[in-house]
Amino acid sequence: MSQNDAEILQTTQARVLAHCGQAGLFVHGQRVAAAVSGGADSMALLRMLLALAEPLGITVTACHVNHRLRGPAADADEAFVRAQCARLGVELRVFRAGEEGLPLADGGEAGARNLRYACFERLRREGIDRVATAHTVTDQAETLLFRLARGTGLHGAGGIRPVRDFYVRPLLCLTRAEVEACCAAWGQSWVTDETNLSDAYARNRLRHDALPALRQANAGAERNLARFCEKAAQADAYFARAAAGLLDQAARVEPQDCPPAVRRVLESGGPVWRLEVLQQADPLILEAAAHALVAPHRDPEELYIRLLCQLVEKGTGAVQLRPGVRLRAGQGFFWQEDAPAPPAAPLEAVPFCPEKQAEYPLGGGQWLCVRLSRHSFQEKTQVVHKKDLKNVADYARITMLHPALTLRSRLPGDLYRPAGRSVTKPLRKWMNEQAIPPQVRDSLPVLADGSEVVWVCGAGFAEGLAPHPGDDGLTLYLEIQTRKGEERGR
Amino acid sequence: MSQNDAEILQTTQARVLAHCGQAGLFVHGQRVAAAVSGGADSMALLRMLLALAEPLGITVTACHVNHRLRGPAADADEAFVRAQCARLGVELRVFRAGEEGLPLADGGEAGARNLRYACFERLRREGIDRVATAHTVTDQAETLLFRLARGTGLHGAGGIRPVRDFYVRPLLCLTRAEVEACCAAWGQSWVTDETNLSDAYARNRLRHDALPALRQANAGAERNLARFCEKAAQADAYFARAAAGLLDQAARVEPQDCPPAVRRVLESGGPVWRLEVLQQADPLILEAAAHALVAPHRDPEELYIRLLCQLVEKGTGAVQLRPGVRLRAGQGFFWQEDAPAPPAAPLEAVPFCPEKQAEYPLGGGQWLCVRLSRHSFQEKTQVVHKKDLKNVADYARITMLHPALTLRSRLPGDLYRPAGRSVTKPLRKWMNEQAIPPQVRDSLPVLADGSEVVWVCGAGFAEGLAPHPGDDGLTLYLEIQTRKGEERGR
Repeated sequence: MSQNDAEILQTTQARVLAHCGQAGLFVHGQRVAAAVSGGADSMALLRMLLALAEPLGITVTACHVNHRLRGPAADADEAFVRAQCARLGVELRVFRAGEEGLPLADGGEAGARNLRYACFERLRREGIDRVATAHTVTDQAETLLFRLARGTGLHGAGGIRPVRDFYVRPLLCLTRAEVEACCAAWGQSWVTDETNLSDAYARNRLRHDALPALRQANAGAERNLARFCEKAAQADAYFARAAAGLLDQAARVEPQDCPPAVRRVLESGGPVWRLEVLQQADPLILEAAAHALVAPHRDPEELYIRLLCQLVEKGTGAVQLRPGVRLRAGQGFFWQEDAPAPPAAPLEAVPFCPEKQAEYPLGGGQWLCVRLSRHSFQEKTQVVHKKDLKNVADYARITMLHPALTLRSRLPGDLYRPAGRSVTKPLRKWMNEQAIPPQVRDSLPVLADGSEVVWVCGAGFAEGLAPHPGDDGLTLYLEIQTRKGEERGR
Repeated sequence: MSQNDAEILQTTQARVLAHCGQAGLFVHGQRVAAAVSGGADSMALLRMLLALAEPLGITVTACHVNHRLRGPAADADEAFVRAQCARLGVELRVFRAGEEGLPLADGGEAGARNLRYACFERLRREGIDRVATAHTVTDQAETLLFRLARGTGLHGAGGIRPVRDFYVRPLLCLTRAEVEACCAAWGQSWVTDETNLSDAYARNRLRHDALPALRQANAGAERNLARFCEKAAQADAYFARAAAGLLDQAARVEPQDCPPAVRRVLESGGPVWRLEVLQQADPLILEAAAHALVAPHRDPEELYIRLLCQLVEKGTGAVQLRPGVRLRAGQGFFWQEDAPAPPAAPLEAVPFCPEKQAEYPLGGGQWLCVRLSRHSFQEKTQVVHKKDLKNVADYARITMLHPALTLRSRLPGDLYRPAGRSVTKPLRKWMNEQAIPPQVRDSLPVLADGSEVVWVCGAGFAEGLAPHPGDDGLTLYLEIQTRKGEERGR
């Protein structure tokens, strides 16, 4: 190894060691598995962890997930990783999609990620303390750009966290160029995953056009973007702490002060908060609290944060977070209800005639309630009545395009074009991506025209059916209501 | 006007009106001057304000700044704006660089901006209540990208604020494409400033490469970036409020509790804070407080924020913010000292021999103190001793490259290559850009080799002279000390 190579490695290792220490990635004695795809970043990760195993006080193994999506190329990568680990004397655990009870990856980025995380979960159960992934400063910068383009808040702008649960990112202090320089210095070869060059088109445009332009504006752009992520993550953590404090304070509720319905929630261990405390909070802290309430149940998109903040402000009403979970406000309190799960049995298909029938039983005490009203009326009342802006369609358009709709559960071959995405996909694939629990999938109500699904319970109407602002036609509005016990006949 | 054009204008005007209301841009009865360059954005701004003058309750005039940097093209733009304002019946105030006592613009972006703001200040004195500038959502997105690339925190990520002082941005809710569509709908022509295509190269790379790549990732990228700016600005405002509260609380100081030096500062109306209160604050709030203390005196770069936070934590020492202003900590207090202004008279040139002479009198009670130490020692002690990381040079390099340095004030023809900028510029021009007060310029100490300035007091050493990390040679370290009264012989 040349003097120069030795210096590169020495400096870089010192930086990674400092990063691991500052971010608290490892605890002495832990068993760490490096997730190794065979690419430059992950080979550098493995080499780096081996070099630092002693000062970090960790045991290093490797794991590899063969998604089996790219035929012989994927098997060649697996063979490469096996050979490298053997050469380096590292214990390697290989997972292959569809084997050992693992699911098959479905070709999408989300499916591949789900498969990887399923494998990592197994490692956890097998006694691994930390899975290390090879994310770099460059990934961080790309992630920030991607999220900013897609729309994000402070939480998302915080980017990839150095530690999340049992995942750690030791290379989050190095650029991809530095990582490749390390591989060169070690004489470490790597494979190039051609999907990197083709699969995620938007991300590659960011990589090949946006980042170089930013580097032109400032040579240290990648690092500066990553540094901004750290600051955003710190601010996000501040607001999350303040929100936790707010919720704690608001949760000091005595059962005897509550109306009966709230007391039952409280006594069954469900969360109840005093509205007054929430209403007096700084809007940013309340938003962070709403984020914390939404996140366990669904992607915490802005819409839901806003709906919850409006609910607190208004002090009465409900927001359905997902089938089975909703937040309600009333009589000075704010609480979470675990509404009964949707019917476990598939729905029998029935024709959907909103102009004739206003309610459809879904089983399990749930009803699909249908309302038709003029857009202008709808606009005035939407804040009050609407649980989900997505459950609104233009009546003229939907009846013209789909004169014979059916209310049913999903069927093989169903296609869905979610609003705002401009892409039609198999409903099955969409459900995978949305991580809809398997036990819910077969019973989730949908409206369909043949195999074209135009509405999914919880996700709303398909692309192109929402009313245009300013139109003055009829709006079709769907709502799931639960009716039993005191709720009946509400 | 076609039906479609009328609809575009109606919708867009409604959005601008809503934006003006939400952001509180105008108060009924105000006199507003639209800053009009003649480009599409500013012509749309003028037309939009004219269309909304009645609902906003404002009087609209226009102003144009001819920077006189582009010869006949600049005069043609001025003529275009004059003709358009005459046609629209709008009162127009034209400023021309170098006339009416206005400075000449120096060709750089900063100089041009300084000129414009000088003109706008005149408008304020002439009775204008608000100057409206034509920044769009697209400018906002570019600004965010530019600042992220250059390195920024929440404050900078907040982007262009809709209101700043007496500047307002009515078009900050429209993309550039929407602005151009409005001009087309009005049949409003505009001029194209060719410097937009050539002058600011980095910004144009962002405009032509980065933004389109982000739009590819998400069609609404510009808006999403601008929306993120709003969120960052809200979070920044939260921390700024919390910081103001912290400083208020810490400023509750009784003179009888202070040691004499601190009491004198307090009694002369200078700010004094209790260290304990600052030390117990959340780090993010303390950072925001440090930002608030640095910002009035210099560009609030991260280095100074960090130095102030360290000073608070340590509880003793001083940080020089700029010649004349420093913050000190000691005996349980933290206070701002208006150190005596630097000597008003130019310095007589003296040879600079750090190995022979450790102190150089600068007049006015100030001394340039010189220290040579091994890098390794320096690294260990730098947090404690160093007021400014920029005042450190590699001794071997500086003596090899510049064997005969002179300590003096500036001379005509001086050149300076500030660190981190990779550009050599006339010292005069650099001082303009840095907005160094004219009364300070002639007396600011510099180290020079002929006309090549290698160190400027307050700005530090020129590019390429800093020690390399890991080197083990000698470090040259400069510090300005003030010594009089009790400070003597410290």
